[in-house]
This record gives sequence, C-alpha cells and structure tokens, in this order.
Amino acid sequence: MTVPKRCKQERARPFKNTVAARTHKRQQWNYTRVIPVSSSRDLISARFSHDTPVWTCKKACKTAVMHVTALAGGVGGARFLRGLLDHLATRPGFTDDPDSQVTIIGNTGDDITLFGLRVCPDLDTILYTLGGGIHEGQGWGRADESFAVQGELAALGAQPQWFGLGDKDFATHIARSQWLGQGRTLSDVTAALATRWGLPEQRVRLLPMTDQPVETHVVLDDADGTRAVHFQEWWVRMGAAVPATRFVVAGMDRATPAPGVLDALRTADIVLLPPSNPVVSIGVILSVPGIRDALRGTLAPVVGVSPIVSGRPVRGHADACLAALGMPAEAMSVASLYADFMRGWLVDPADAPAESEIPAGLVVRSRPLLMTDRAAAAAIAGAAVELALELRRT
Amino acid sequence: MTVPKRCKQERARPFKNTVAARTHKRQQWNYTRVIPVSSSRDLISARFSHDTPVWTCKKACKTAVMHVTALAGGVGGARFLRGLLDHLATRPGFTDDPDSQVTIIGNTGDDITLFGLRVCPDLDTILYTLGGGIHEGQGWGRADESFAVQGELAALGAQPQWFGLGDKDFATHIARSQWLGQGRTLSDVTAALATRWGLPEQRVRLLPMTDQPVETHVVLDDADGTRAVHFQEWWVRMGAAVPATRFVVAGMDRATPAPGVLDALRTADIVLLPPSNPVVSIGVILSVPGIRDALRGTLAPVVGVSPIVSGRPVRGHADACLAALGMPAEAMSVASLYADFMRGWLVDPADAPAESEIPAGLVVRSRPLLMTDRAAAAAIAGAAVELALELRRT
Repeated sequence: MTVPKRCKQERARPFKNTVAARTHKRQQWNYTRVIPVSSSRDLISARFSHDTPVWTCKKACKTAVMHVTALAGGVGGARFLRGLLDHLATRPGFTDDPDSQVTIIGNTGDDITLFGLRVCPDLDTILYTLGGGIHEGQGWGRADESFAVQGELAALGAQPQWFGLGDKDFATHIARSQWLGQGRTLSDVTAALATRWGLPEQRVRLLPMTDQPVETHVVLDDADGTRAVHFQEWWVRMGAAVPATRFVVAGMDRATPAPGVLDALRTADIVLLPPSNPVVSIGVILSVPGIRDALRGTLAPVVGVSPIVSGRPVRGHADACLAALGMPAEAMSVASLYADFMRGWLVDPADAPAESEIPAGLVVRSRPLLMTDRAAAAAIAGAAVELALELRRT
Repeated sequence: MTVPKRCKQERARPFKNTVAARTHKRQQWNYTRVIPVSSSRDLISARFSHDTPVWTCKKACKTAVMHVTALAGGVGGARFLRGLLDHLATRPGFTDDPDSQVTIIGNTGDDITLFGLRVCPDLDTILYTLGGGIHEGQGWGRADESFAVQGELAALGAQPQWFGLGDKDFATHIARSQWLGQGRTLSDVTAALATRWGLPEQRVRLLPMTDQPVETHVVLDDADGTRAVHFQEWWVRMGAAVPATRFVVAGMDRATPAPGVLDALRTADIVLLPPSNPVVSIGVILSVPGIRDALRGTLAPVVGVSPIVSGRPVRGHADACLAALGMPAEAMSVASLYADFMRGWLVDPADAPAESEIPAGLVVRSRPLLMTDRAAAAAIAGAAVELALELRRT
C-alpha cells in the first residue's frame, strides 16, 4: 500500500501563521499534488500544531505513522519499543513505506567504564531486546550467556564484581571500546552495533542522547557521610536502598545532543515516552541541553506511558528516584515532570486521576499498563500511538 | 637443609683484581664467617669469574643454585622453564632457601593490541604454563577454554579474526589493558598476573624485558611489494610462509630494560637461555639496550639450549627467522648469535659439532633435546644447570 508522506520541503520550513495555500511537488506519490491548507486550526497554535501537508490527505493520514521518535531507558523502554515495532508491523503504512522509521533516543547516563571497557547498559538492552538476543527472564544481558571472562577476572582480583557481565556481553563492550578508542563517536559505534542486531532492517535507528561521555552520579547522605557514587553502584550494588539526595550527571555541562537527535524530535510524526524511569532515564535525556527545547517546540504530539502502576514502579527503583526529587511515586507526579511538552498520558486504571487532577492541555487515558508479555507491550504501544494520532488530528 | 648464600654486600661490590682477604659477617648461616679468598683464579678473568664468596664454601656451593635468570620466548621457553622448576625442586638448596629465585626475562616483542586489548603472548604462555592453566596440547592459551567472546566479536565484524583468543584468555588481556590504562607499568601488571598464577610461591619472578611498548614487525618483499606486517600476522596468519627480509622492532629505540632485569643478570648464579626462537624471542630480548651488555658483563656462566634439533626447529618457524639473517637452521649457527657472552651450549646428538667447529671458550654438550614430556624437559633443564655449575667452578 502506498501511503502519502509529509512533504519534506514543507516540513523543513518554519511554521508560519499564514493561511496562504502552498503548492507541493510530489514526484512519486499518488495523491493530490496541489495541496490547499484545509483548515487554519493547525496554523494558530504553534505549540501543538503540525505541518500542513499532513492534513491534505483525507484518508490515509489518519492512520499513517511514518516517523516515530521515542526516548528510552533500559528494560521497560526496550520492552515497550519491541511492542511498538510489533504494533507498527500491523499498521498499514509503516512497514510498506521505505521512508518510515522509528528513532530511539537512548539514555547514556547509566554508562559506566568497567574493567577499562565502556558499558552502555540502556543502549545494549535496547539492542539485545529489539535484535532478539535479550535474556527474557532478567530483561537485560544476553540469552544463553556464559561467564568465563568474569570468573577469570574475579580470579585476577579485578574489580568491581558486583556488575554481572556475560561473555557475549563482554564482546559488545570490547568492540565498543575498541571503536571508541579509534576515535569513532558513540553514535557511529552504536550504529555499527545496531547493524549486527538487524535494527536497520526493522527501520529502527538507535541514537545515543549524546556522543559526549556522561555519567549519572548519586549523592548520598547517610551514616557514612555525604558522598557521590556512580548510578550503577547505587542501583545495582546498593539496590537503591540508601536514599538518594540528588542526582548529578557528570559531563552534562559539555554534552550536546548526538547528531540526528534534535531533527528526530523536530520532524517526528509522533513522539513517545515509554514507561522508562522518569528521573534517571527520561529525566537525564531531557537534561541534555537542547532536547527539552526540541520537545517543547516539536509539532508532533508527545505521548507518554506511565512507569508507575498502582502507585509503584513496574520495575526498578523509580520510587527511590522520585523521592530524591521530593515527589511521590504517582502517575500524575511523573506527568508533571513532562508538563511543558507532553500532550497525552497513558495511565493504568489503578492510577486514573480525578478529572480535577488533570492539567489543562493534557489528555489522560487509562488502560492496563502491565507489560506481562510481548502482546501486552504491543497493545500498550498501540494505545500510545492511537492517542498520539488522535492528538495529531485535533 | 641450610645452604650457604653468597654475601649480598660482596656481590654488590664491583669486581676487583686483588687477592686481599675479605671478612663477611653472616648472622644466620652455619658456615665459616671469615672468608678468605681461596684462589686467585677467579680474580684474573673478569669475564667469566664469580664473586669470591661463592668459593669459600667448600661443599654446598658446588651444587647450590640460588639465583637463576633465564631469557624466554613462548611455548618452548615456557616448557623448558617448567622443567627447570621441576628440576630445581629436586635439588637441595633451591626450595629450602627463602632467598632462592628464578627470574624470567620475557620477550614482549610479540605483543600486539587486538580489539583494543594489549596481548602479551609470550608472557601469558609462561604464566599459564608455570601456573598450571596452559592448554597442553597446543602449548599456548588456556585449558578448557570457551570462545563466546571471539564468536560474538566475529558477529560484530570486529577484526582481526585470525588470532584465536579464548574467553579466559580475554580476561587476562582485559585486566592487563585496564591496569595499563590506569598508568601501571607492564612490570607491575605482569607481577599482578603472576600472583594469580602462584609464581611467587614457586619463587619465580617474571619480568617483561621492557616496560615500553615494543612490537616486532616483519619486512616482506614479494609479489605484493615491500611491506611490513606485525610479527603475529606473519607468524600466525601467514604461517611465516612469506620469506622475511628482516625484522624491525618498533619502539626499541625508546626501550629500556624493565626494573630488575639488569640486576637479575648481574647478580645471577647462572643464566640460562631456553630453546626459544633465537631471532624473534631471545634475539629481541638481546636488542633491548643494556641487556646484551649485562650478559657480557655478568659473572654468572651463560648456558643455552639449542632450539634446533636435527637441523630443524623443534617448534615454530625459527628456520624462517634465521633465513632472514642469512643463516642456516643449525645449532652452531644459533650459538654464534650468542658468541659474545655464552659459555655453554647444549645440542642434540643429531647436531653435535665436530671439535673444530666449536669456538674457543664455548663448552658444547650433546644430549637428547626433544621435550617430549615434562620429565624430559626437566632432564634437559637439569643438564643445562649442571653445565652451568660446572662452568661456574672452572
């Protein structure tokens, strides 16, 4: 099926509050070549409007999704994204269109150097999950993994031993470190790894949020005094049991969005926020200078999926992270973190807010949000896509 | 058994051609405290003489071996050294004396950076062999090895794939690279690895010939033109089938002997040259500025074991290496490479030279030199030690 696309020429033009008819040349698509602006509605609200060409197709545009951009952390984000791909595969338009693409902007604040090797846990979890190599049970690391390297490193007294790395996983970090050492950027290295996992064939592009090395550190203040530890040490070794005072992302002052990140937000049809940790995953991505602005400015509707179900994080220690911000682990608290750019919010029925609790400009939908299996994840992703499309039409 | 030791104070003094009696204080050893110089024989030939205190013990000194220093390459050297330890364990004096030690000066010219990790094949072969972790069949690499990392690196398209690295082996290179990256020296790193393999408990000290990174490159001149490749590429990938024009050790101009190397040669009781490759193993060690001078100057007898048996290298491509020097693969040709410092030479009966072929000042002994098993290696090492002790007494 051939589906109309938005005119790139038009999309590249800054939004202008005029109602002048515009003419677009389309060389290969079988739909109206001369595109009148059908309504002025999308022209009077810069914040939430879309480029006009979308509206010129009277049928397919209602359901066509060509460019999806998502921000993502680790396990929850990866499972949601796999569900998203499963869902998009069922939609006319996405799989048929050679220009369609899902762009994932991955968190790199969790990155850590272990045994001299650069480990990017969130990027790897996404790669392994979408590429079919993930350990399904634990949600991270490789399936059918062995641990000869880590065992030998332990025999050598190499530290730390609290971060489990399998042999196949080690190969990823070895290759990444080698390539980074050759002067390649993290974007470039991530693209190479994505090729091994078949992401381009799935029309998926995985971008690190930034090419600069950044690392989230956690400030603790307990009987041992005030100190900062690497996020992974707090998360993995301490199980986030020591209360975090705040989070500091080392290197963020020098960070810029990786190539393609801002464009992916600006030119997306829809932007999704998977149920990733709102503080140390999505929050860290948002703190890369320029990314939050791009989300505020994009014409695409931004729809998020709550990582909080029944007042608890579905996975991980998001509650401990929110506590550091002085916020309760509640779906609507998380939504408030995205208030300046998010238009749609999926919550679990258990967390459905009263009408009075819903801020102006935000559409909240409730549906079961537990990603109990791959089909459930696809259904949740589908609901997010539907909500975004609905917001795109309004 | 308590065995007399050479007086450290005396050994540290430069050799002087006087016959003055010297007095030594010994606190704990049950032998003559006042040591007269018993003979002037050892005082008139600086080149091959010993410090005098050795001669003052009339009995034990004839067989006691406290400090052995050996230069070594990879598989052949490692097997010889394991035999040496087996042999020394049977000798009174060595295992009983807390000061006894075997110092191995290992070749690092074979070192190579693969996948961004620093690999030291000769040092590792020695560590694994002496530590009981070697793959006996192939002589290098770890026993009971798996290859998950290399397999995954292949899937990632990482190069090269012609150098086989197992998972446990990878751990060694990961730890080494991490520690080197932390600013530790190769000596320090090697000592840490040696601890994992129990070398200190065996009274073995493994020193890299130099802490500076050096790499042997092979100049080739064939139909593809004149070019240089890393030694490992020539040796492993090409099987040394392309004739080498010459060898160039990159980095040697900046290399200095690692800490302890020159002292180990100067203060040794005996110095051994295992049947390692005379060109790219022993020859490269000798090319580190200062090492050859130390061998020329040491008072310890230097005894070598021929790596050539029946006119062929026992293992590897020593013939191809000797050819690059314009030399035949003959035991006495190899001896000529060490002519300026070697006093004893063990050859196989098949390679026994005519009396007229033996240079003045060199004692040649023939005995079977095939290290068919561990016991054979111990017997060969024992023969080398015996020859050295004999030369030490003359």
